[in-house]
Amino acid sequence: MAALRVTVWNEGQHEKTNLTVQKVYPDGMHTVIANALREQGLEVRTATLDDTEHGLTQEVLDATDVLTWWGHMAHDKVSDAVVERVYQRVLNGMGLVVLHSGHFSKIFKKLMGTSCDLKWREANERERIWVVEPGHPIVQGLGDHFDIPHEEMYGEHFDIPAPDTLVFVSWFQGGEVFRSGACYHRGRGKVFYFRPGHETYPTYYQKEVQLVIGNGVRWAAPSGLAELSYGHRPNPLEPIT
Amino acid sequence: MAALRVTVWNEGQHEKTNLTVQKVYPDGMHTVIANALREQGLEVRTATLDDTEHGLTQEVLDATDVLTWWGHMAHDKVSDAVVERVYQRVLNGMGLVVLHSGHFSKIFKKLMGTSCDLKWREANERERIWVVEPGHPIVQGLGDHFDIPHEEMYGEHFDIPAPDTLVFVSWFQGGEVFRSGACYHRGRGKVFYFRPGHETYPTYYQKEVQLVIGNGVRWAAPSGLAELSYGHRPNPLEPIT
Amino acid sequence: MAALRVTVWNEGQHEKTNLTVQKVYPDGMHTVIANALREQGLEVRTATLDDTEHGLTQEVLDATDVLTWWGHMAHDKVSDAVVERVYQRVLNGMGLVVLHSGHFSKIFKKLMGTSCDLKWREANERERIWVVEPGHPIVQGLGDHFDIPHEEMYGEHFDIPAPDTLVFVSWFQGGEVFRSGACYHRGRGKVFYFRPGHETYPTYYQKEVQLVIGNGVRWAAPSGLAELSYGHRPNPLEPIT
Amino acid sequence: MAALRVTVWNEGQHEKTNLTVQKVYPDGMHTVIANALREQGLEVRTATLDDTEHGLTQEVLDATDVLTWWGHMAHDKVSDAVVERVYQRVLNGMGLVVLHSGHFSKIFKKLMGTSCDLKWREANERERIWVVEPGHPIVQGLGDHFDIPHEEMYGEHFDIPAPDTLVFVSWFQGGEVFRSGACYHRGRGKVFYFRPGHETYPTYYQKEVQLVIGNGVRWAAPSGLAELSYGHRPNPLEPIT
Repeated sequence: MAALRVTVWNEGQHEKTNLTVQKVYPDGMHTVIANALREQGLEVRTATLDDTEHGLTQEVLDATDVLTWWGHMAHDKVSDAVVERVYQRVLNGMGLVVLHSGHFSKIFKKLMGTSCDLKWREANERERIWVVEPGHPIVQGLGDHFDIPHEEMYGEHFDIPAPDTLVFVSWFQGGEVFRSGACYHRGRGKVFYFRPGHETYPTYYQKEVQLVIGNGVRWAAPSGLAELSYGHRPNPLEPIT
Repeated sequence: MAALRVTVWNEGQHEKTNLTVQKVYPDGMHTVIANALREQGLEVRTATLDDTEHGLTQEVLDATDVLTWWGHMAHDKVSDAVVERVYQRVLNGMGLVVLHSGHFSKIFKKLMGTSCDLKWREANERERIWVVEPGHPIVQGLGDHFDIPHEEMYGEHFDIPAPDTLVFVSWFQGGEVFRSGACYHRGRGKVFYFRPGHETYPTYYQKEVQLVIGNGVRWAAPSGLAELSYGHRPNPLEPIT
Repeated sequence: MAALRVTVWNEGQHEKTNLTVQKVYPDGMHTVIANALREQGLEVRTATLDDTEHGLTQEVLDATDVLTWWGHMAHDKVSDAVVERVYQRVLNGMGLVVLHSGHFSKIFKKLMGTSCDLKWREANERERIWVVEPGHPIVQGLGDHFDIPHEEMYGEHFDIPAPDTLVFVSWFQGGEVFRSGACYHRGRGKVFYFRPGHETYPTYYQKEVQLVIGNGVRWAAPSGLAELSYGHRPNPLEPIT
Repeated sequence: MAALRVTVWNEGQHEKTNLTVQKVYPDGMHTVIANALREQGLEVRTATLDDTEHGLTQEVLDATDVLTWWGHMAHDKVSDAVVERVYQRVLNGMGLVVLHSGHFSKIFKKLMGTSCDLKWREANERERIWVVEPGHPIVQGLGDHFDIPHEEMYGEHFDIPAPDTLVFVSWFQGGEVFRSGACYHRGRGKVFYFRPGHETYPTYYQKEVQLVIGNGVRWAAPSGLAELSYGHRPNPLEPIT
């Protein structure tokens, strides 16, 4: 079986302006995520906001089985044309793994149909991620929970449609909960939202987090119909009398 | 209990240009739907595309518990500002009942996050609507199926997210099936899509169809939290140590 | 509209043997729950394990719109015949609200098809219940969360089927989360599981808890098809050629 | 990757008593299904009702990744001990693919929690199976629908819980529809119900049907947590103050 082709997309702006982020991710978050996926045997390229067409040309997307998405401070700078291109690819089968603050990206909001709003707080608190669907491929290799020592808090209500499958729920030290792993079918594509990954913490170096992203990529890989057709069907399959 | 306040929205264009439609709905589809809902004790007003702001000013929407939507040939003529206004009201609790060719309306596509495409055929064929969730309030008063003698066919694949609750599946004489009654939560609002109602057939005069629309309106009526808040939460509910 | 007829069922054993429980619920938990529902305008009777046929004769069940269920130490003492009778009534439309340790009752396990197992701890800790489906009728009248000062902890993984609608998620001080409000359709009936209510705490006196149980009862009330038929259909509705 | 280990279970009674069935399946339905799965690279054994312990000893189940189940006239002859054994294995991760009249098997009813009743008719009619979740791995290799020339009709209402994922809906010539491909998580296990396969028709020789069963087996293969624990947790993960 040929390796899955993954494109790891990162806005890549915090890394250019914030010393804390630079220290944690000197080569950008995308590099750390990409390397982790390569170690899992996936074929990975990266792309960032500042690349031409954000690195997401039609050619790149056509050669991408699963796209991962991290964005935050520059959601509005992502061109609508690229968003539409990604959207069409998802409906046509490309997987999409949306990470952390990507909840507010144009592409995620467009695919969800809701505001995707939430509560948040930066207080160095502990996040504990609990598995609620223990037979799902995305949890393979985990125990029934794992901790992230320091993270930004995201709290309910998270304004998303009820997931097709809810995989994780997070507990936060400061008193909130969050649906932190959520799976969706959209057209022939699959979307996985995974919460962790604030830019000032070394979250994407953590083994469990890397495993979940890899599992998410494998789950979201194209797996359905080769094609679909819509529109006018003048000729009934059965006689109409 | 005060009566639910319903706004029945109709594009109202076919009625102006098509003799067949004029014959079936001389006062517009909205009039027939509105009267049916009034007979069920609801407080109903109507609005159409050609009204100022399509009849959907902020004042009207703020005084609307549930909006029903029929559109077809003029989806693109609905202003984006009005769509955004309706969208915000739905996320804030207003119910939305989308009828038939409303599947391609801007508001429905925005709330679904998918293309909402489907197969279709006009061949005067029989539609048989089967109940698949028999304890749902939307089926109250029905038998386990009912027939519409002549309808346009809509066939799968219907490109919607898997419904939170699938209530009806249609059988068509020409050989197709269709998920014809689908319920969704979006934000604090509820959305019910109901398939029947091609403009050249007297579908909205049929008692079962009127009952389902009324049941859908009652189900979609505001019923959740009075308000929600999002955003920064600097003060944890629990101590962080 | 006639008042909903509710039967509040309580095992009623802890109250007979445990001084702490007697102090909190001198007339039994069922009395407190029943009074709270009466104050909400419902027509309520109570029944307990020690009543003849556990107070759940066919006549009682036939006159019950919604049954609430609390049990714990004597699940095995509930007769299989009564369980089967309740089960048939649920499939035929009666609502069922299962409370707290009722997760391990015969009737809940039979309707879920899973072990319904979970983690637990008695440590006087705080439970914070978050709303995750803010448009659902069961949350009407609440804010976006509420606290129970002292409760038993229930933690994931909770071995239930993914709810048709997940309404609440609980946060616990000791580090766990729990899907604490879960809605299901079963046949023509509806089932609502609501977590709180350990026998040694005054949980059922708390206004929010009473409101949720009342909302759950109203949501679970019979609302679907009047009847259903199954089995042999020798005569096709359409010609087979 | 080691081949998935599949056990194809067949009641195997019709084949012993019915000449029509003997003609279609001279070596039993299980043989045809098993051979089809072997051609897809799976490691397959078969078991039948008349084998010792129905061929489903603990040893066999422990060495089974996915079990397929066909039963009809002898559901009641399946021992409760074997049903319990299969049930525990499913909750612990073994996949289960339930075929056709297996809808009334003890194991399926136990896992569903409902009556699993339906309408049926034997009239040699055409079944057309439509894909409604086009990105799901179970539909890989299909077109958007396929026909079975002659089948028994199964019609709604099908008394199952709403599937976690609804994959197929069937159209029947005589006027019914049916949710014919339904996916469920139960504990750490996965269950796929697939409708076709009446014993008097050569359905299990059809390529699309064989493909769907193979896809179903691959989807249902164990893929979640290695283990789960439940019960008393005396030591909180976080301090309780």
